[in-house]
Amino acid sequence: ADAAAAAQARDRQARMTKPAGSLGVLEDLSIRLAGLAGQCPPPLPEPAAVAVFAGDHGVHAQGVTPWPQEVTGQMVANFLAGGAVVNAFAAQVGAAVTVVDVGVAVAPAAGAGLLERNVRRGTRDMTVEPAMTRDEAIAAIEVGIAVAGELVDAGHRALLTGDMGIANTTASAALVAAFTGADAAAVTGAGTGIDAETLAHKTEVVRRALARHDLDADDPIGVLAAVGGLEHAAIAGLVLGGAARRVPVILDGVIAGSATLVAAALAPDCLDAVVAGHRSTEPGHGVALDHLGLTPLVDLSLRLGEGTGAVLALPLVQAGVRALRDVATFDSAGVTEKQ
Amino acid sequence: ADAAAAAQARDRQARMTKPAGSLGVLEDLSIRLAGLAGQCPPPLPEPAAVAVFAGDHGVHAQGVTPWPQEVTGQMVANFLAGGAVVNAFAAQVGAAVTVVDVGVAVAPAAGAGLLERNVRRGTRDMTVEPAMTRDEAIAAIEVGIAVAGELVDAGHRALLTGDMGIANTTASAALVAAFTGADAAAVTGAGTGIDAETLAHKTEVVRRALARHDLDADDPIGVLAAVGGLEHAAIAGLVLGGAARRVPVILDGVIAGSATLVAAALAPDCLDAVVAGHRSTEPGHGVALDHLGLTPLVDLSLRLGEGTGAVLALPLVQAGVRALRDVATFDSAGVTEKQ
Repeated sequence: ADAAAAAQARDRQARMTKPAGSLGVLEDLSIRLAGLAGQCPPPLPEPAAVAVFAGDHGVHAQGVTPWPQEVTGQMVANFLAGGAVVNAFAAQVGAAVTVVDVGVAVAPAAGAGLLERNVRRGTRDMTVEPAMTRDEAIAAIEVGIAVAGELVDAGHRALLTGDMGIANTTASAALVAAFTGADAAAVTGAGTGIDAETLAHKTEVVRRALARHDLDADDPIGVLAAVGGLEHAAIAGLVLGGAARRVPVILDGVIAGSATLVAAALAPDCLDAVVAGHRSTEPGHGVALDHLGLTPLVDLSLRLGEGTGAVLALPLVQAGVRALRDVATFDSAGVTEKQ
Repeated sequence: ADAAAAAQARDRQARMTKPAGSLGVLEDLSIRLAGLAGQCPPPLPEPAAVAVFAGDHGVHAQGVTPWPQEVTGQMVANFLAGGAVVNAFAAQVGAAVTVVDVGVAVAPAAGAGLLERNVRRGTRDMTVEPAMTRDEAIAAIEVGIAVAGELVDAGHRALLTGDMGIANTTASAALVAAFTGADAAAVTGAGTGIDAETLAHKTEVVRRALARHDLDADDPIGVLAAVGGLEHAAIAGLVLGGAARRVPVILDGVIAGSATLVAAALAPDCLDAVVAGHRSTEPGHGVALDHLGLTPLVDLSLRLGEGTGAVLALPLVQAGVRALRDVATFDSAGVTEKQ
């Protein structure tokens, strides 16, 4: 981050026609984004694009969710038809939705808004063998980096993470445990909504997967390959690619949070570009955010994924930057300062 | 509220292509707004208008703030020039800003966007005498009701409360204490930012004002007249007027929260229309929201007023309604439900 631009932003916030500090979290955020952009004020984070990375999971075979695997592909079709919640939210805030098949088990029908970048038709079962090879994990990260670059080249000035993948909260829980050292029980949650019995089983599956592999947080690619998902890898890539272009990346929920643990382990400076969009109800999400030192903007008990929480945060991020750009100073507006 | 429309909305939320309950707070909100509108789905809450009610306070003479009283009028000019934070935020989310002089000490210069509805050029000092007569309080409430009607007649489908008035957190603290029974110390805060010594003095001023009058929460007009502000009265009117037109009213911070205590005491059903936009850092705000049974949507340590917190909440409210209107059902999208 550019310390001079951040200092300029901090100084400007103190001269704007409002009590110093009265914009709270948005004041700090606008200063961070000035540092990221290397200019004050930073560019408005618009237009924005949500990249929804879709992938399937071999661990689905372990019965961690009541949702059939084919729902991943069906929801991809729903995204392309504009019928999902992320479409409605994105339409409301003026964000574009791009769907990326990075790992769906059955090839989706082509459609406007779909990027076909499949690395593998679903991961392997992490309780039996590594979910991916290292090469597959790297290829999926590279998909995310490439998508970030393409979206920025197309003019987008904010990237939002989205995901779709039945069973992907199981992979997220394993990633969070591996990178933070938290116990499986502390990071495994109800996902889309499961009963207590299934949750106990899911937690045991996560525990078995963690025990099955020799996980080393200092080898992030190895951890990702062993227990991650193809969409997690791609989201890690989106974070890295957005940061490389100095464009803010707004994270959705636990899938993004766990993927960002991978990205931050690979390149800690990428966090300069990261904005935590929301806090989901999934327990592993809070653990990941705490580990990353990120405070979410929206906290409305969402647990949907797709990018929905990131999209809700977008207008807050934009408003914070907009204030830094547009608001008059005490001098310019002829407003008396406090005595 | 219309129970049948709310039930329809609840049923639709359960059939939408997402896990039941996964939209958290926004799911409940969309159901409430269907009940308010008496139809499912309810109309999108747009276009939206922020009504910024400005007034001055006789209690300013007691030294409760380091800001000079003329800042109220100067900020009115800043709003009209588009230079304040509420202007920047509103521009970002597409809301209109209307400024209403309901009680500014010095008449503002006329300007586009200003409604001149002054009831009195500032309240009296509540530590010495009632801040307003009952007739003045009622007249200011009627200003708010009239503004709500005019904004709805002009096509607005969401009303947002805003305020400007140096020393108005002092009046808010007194109102919250009077309606909730909380101690002055529990509801008096740093407002725009004051030191510990001034806060102790401000708390004592609130305590003296409460002791000076024979306050009866069952006589809301009496309480409002004794210790309230003209902008508080007008905001109470905006809530009542919006509710009468079945249009959602999104509250800003502690000024709106304390004003809504007046409105709810006069007509409890008005709360059907009320959405708590955000939680400010002012302690009396949380006390007021708890008393009203309202949970805020945004919690970002803002303490500015002007309507800024309400404006930040607007896209969240709109997204919640938009999802109920636009999202496909499992049947219509051909997505398999959980087993």
